[in-house]
Amino acid sequence: MRTAIYPGSFDPVTNGHLDIIKRATKLFDRIVVAVAENANKKPLFPRLERKYLLEVSVQGLQNVEVRDFDGLLANYAAEMQAVAVIRGLRAVSDFEYEFQMALMNRKLKSDLETVFLMPSEEYTYLNSTIVKEVARLGGNVRCFLPDAAAQALMEKLNRGI
Amino acid sequence: MRTAIYPGSFDPVTNGHLDIIKRATKLFDRIVVAVAENANKKPLFPRLERKYLLEVSVQGLQNVEVRDFDGLLANYAAEMQAVAVIRGLRAVSDFEYEFQMALMNRKLKSDLETVFLMPSEEYTYLNSTIVKEVARLGGNVRCFLPDAAAQALMEKLNRGI
Amino acid sequence: MRTAIYPGSFDPVTNGHLDIIKRATKLFDRIVVAVAENANKKPLFPRLERKYLLEVSVQGLQNVEVRDFDGLLANYAAEMQAVAVIRGLRAVSDFEYEFQMALMNRKLKSDLETVFLMPSEEYTYLNSTIVKEVARLGGNVRCFLPDAAAQALMEKLNRGI
Amino acid sequence: MRTAIYPGSFDPVTNGHLDIIKRATKLFDRIVVAVAENANKKPLFPRLERKYLLEVSVQGLQNVEVRDFDGLLANYAAEMQAVAVIRGLRAVSDFEYEFQMALMNRKLKSDLETVFLMPSEEYTYLNSTIVKEVARLGGNVRCFLPDAAAQALMEKLNRGI
Amino acid sequence: MRTAIYPGSFDPVTNGHLDIIKRATKLFDRIVVAVAENANKKPLFPRLERKYLLEVSVQGLQNVEVRDFDGLLANYAAEMQAVAVIRGLRAVSDFEYEFQMALMNRKLKSDLETVFLMPSEEYTYLNSTIVKEVARLGGNVRCFLPDAAAQALMEKLNRGI
Amino acid sequence: MRTAIYPGSFDPVTNGHLDIIKRATKLFDRIVVAVAENANKKPLFPRLERKYLLEVSVQGLQNVEVRDFDGLLANYAAEMQAVAVIRGLRAVSDFEYEFQMALMNRKLKSDLETVFLMPSEEYTYLNSTIVKEVARLGGNVRCFLPDAAAQALMEKLNRGI
Repeated sequence: MRTAIYPGSFDPVTNGHLDIIKRATKLFDRIVVAVAENANKKPLFPRLERKYLLEVSVQGLQNVEVRDFDGLLANYAAEMQAVAVIRGLRAVSDFEYEFQMALMNRKLKSDLETVFLMPSEEYTYLNSTIVKEVARLGGNVRCFLPDAAAQALMEKLNRGI
Repeated sequence: MRTAIYPGSFDPVTNGHLDIIKRATKLFDRIVVAVAENANKKPLFPRLERKYLLEVSVQGLQNVEVRDFDGLLANYAAEMQAVAVIRGLRAVSDFEYEFQMALMNRKLKSDLETVFLMPSEEYTYLNSTIVKEVARLGGNVRCFLPDAAAQALMEKLNRGI
Repeated sequence: MRTAIYPGSFDPVTNGHLDIIKRATKLFDRIVVAVAENANKKPLFPRLERKYLLEVSVQGLQNVEVRDFDGLLANYAAEMQAVAVIRGLRAVSDFEYEFQMALMNRKLKSDLETVFLMPSEEYTYLNSTIVKEVARLGGNVRCFLPDAAAQALMEKLNRGI
Repeated sequence: MRTAIYPGSFDPVTNGHLDIIKRATKLFDRIVVAVAENANKKPLFPRLERKYLLEVSVQGLQNVEVRDFDGLLANYAAEMQAVAVIRGLRAVSDFEYEFQMALMNRKLKSDLETVFLMPSEEYTYLNSTIVKEVARLGGNVRCFLPDAAAQALMEKLNRGI
Repeated sequence: MRTAIYPGSFDPVTNGHLDIIKRATKLFDRIVVAVAENANKKPLFPRLERKYLLEVSVQGLQNVEVRDFDGLLANYAAEMQAVAVIRGLRAVSDFEYEFQMALMNRKLKSDLETVFLMPSEEYTYLNSTIVKEVARLGGNVRCFLPDAAAQALMEKLNRGI
Repeated sequence: MRTAIYPGSFDPVTNGHLDIIKRATKLFDRIVVAVAENANKKPLFPRLERKYLLEVSVQGLQNVEVRDFDGLLANYAAEMQAVAVIRGLRAVSDFEYEFQMALMNRKLKSDLETVFLMPSEEYTYLNSTIVKEVARLGGNVRCFLPDAAAQALMEKLNRGI
């Protein structure tokens, strides 16, 4: 049985994240979606809520677990007995940052492979930051997010953050 | 009559911005320079002053209006009956960010085209951030900015910001 | 009245080209699709056929003319009294080549602006070369090309090129 | 059991190719190294010899088969019941070409995933073309190629190609 | 005698920095490693400590001086009678930022050349920010930093920053 | 005394090449401009003429020698006792190719440094290929080339190549 980890802050989960998770389930036996605390970036949603929104969104997908992790991804991958880290690759700017992280993870744990998947081209422009910005400015974000995440984002913004 | 919008924070307007505005006036009947508040980025100049410096700088250019806008650019473009958003494209890193924004705007308003123009190559290296940094370190910025903006920047920095 | 030129070899016209042409018709009063001979690249279709396939494909679009040109684009633009050259921009590699050409054209004719448009994201991966390659290997190219071009390409390949 | 295909022209196989193949064997149950004829590019080695050099080089690796294929990769992947295409990703220029191919393959066969792996950083600069060029100019290529491929390349060049 | 300046914040010095300094000593007669205060970025180490860690690390290298500077690099280069600024170039994202800075410096002091060197490929993924992040998460950073810097970083983090 | 090599095919020398040579003379004691035969690319000018046009163009520059070389650049650099290879870097696409070559040269001769210089921004768009294309199409290339090279190119094209 092969496990792959899909790490991120998921603040909140987007349809682009879900697209990658679905693709990954066809390639590996078990996908661990690993939610980082990401203390530096000051997430909009607390981790518990980010995990909850992920769990609701991956319901119905076989062999997907949502977990949280702290510390080094390389260590957490070893703990999960993962053979691969999954990353979505959308653009050249992603590419360089992701390569740097992948090389560092390989340095820290030489047998941990990073596997890059390409999301559907309709999600090329999509990430959590731009969706939150659009929502803040009053735009409709229902087509970018799973239902629960869209609902939660609008409620949070209506309460004035 | 075709209107195009040139949005930005213009903190302050540079010769590179002016170069793009002049090029745009030859392509469209009316150019709306739309100054965003940009609450996240903490502008050096308040919006009123950014608008004033733009107005002084575009004097003599036909069919250019300086306005401010809040909320989604796609909505403001509809309000202005604009057919296009103008963006300057200088470098690969611009390219990806701008494409993401253009795709998002197209998603929010399908008939809003983004038109990319290339500034004169002498402005390739120029943006408001680097000019402010040079001024802070005591460099002469008169060749990078319209006169009024250079004057205002130096006065602001002399007062200790 | 403002004229814009959309130059290329169009060997053959793809749905990506058509997408750009349609976007351009909303921005300018007259679009001249200018078919270059492109002697170096050894086109699959003779220029007369490339023009014919374009003409069939742009039928119904207002204010679009299909023409051929030889020599420098900058000179032809002057002859056509064009204010702009239209180019589709899909990827970083396009970007650098296109900028080089745009800067050269500006050097040769200083008031000729190059205007970059972004095709629909579903055409990001599309160009004439890859479509011809897929067709040669027996793939179905009907979803990538206007009907007449798809038909012509399959007939040409069936005849053994 | 999950099969992945690693396609290429392998003219000849390099240590960078082997690095990717080894990484892939840890992720999938069966790796089909699929050698394309590549009629356009005029390979230095005939396909039979390219296959032979691959076979010698992957000896000892479990679950790796060397095969040839013609026609569309998407069709061949279906025939092999492969869930993924493996591609090495080294540089930004790779990135765009590879994404174009991956999107096209997905268009032709929607459930075929392309999986990008990163070779060891010491192989970043390595490809068959540059190795052949170095060998032609008299350089030592033993550290870039598996033994059999280095031997074959030097013999071929000594015979005057 | 030709002097070159290698500017940076060195927070702290990494093996990648040292690699560039060593390469530079073979090309110029005197290398001034110039430590910027970098007030914006909030360095982890105070400048005095950053200088000290550099001095310990370059011991044994001929003709290398560690100094600090404030204000414009172009002015400091004139003061040091430097003919060149040295910059390491690792990736496309570096490239554009570095070119912008180099063009600006050339604008401010036309005879100041920027010279780009390529670090060993094993340092491609390395910068001070990622090393500090790995250390914060409990990873071993001894292979990325000179001994004194590794020691200082671990002590600082153990004290809770 | 430090020697640097500036290799290329110079088919023909452009003002961009001259710009780099002038910058290099301020950094090194002796510049060897090394003209490669470049058999693959089928140069327009025979090597003797390319060398002659270079020699005429660098007249008046101290310490510049024009030579030809065959075989590996790394070997020729050793023969010339060069400490560095000079390369101009203009764009992201240059960047990756140049890095690959620089890494390969370092592999072949570990103490040979590649030094990247940035040409004046007005030469960003310039290379021999585009200049030849413009000349073939009847454009004026006098502002892109040294006088002798412009003259030679026009004569060659008038004779029908």
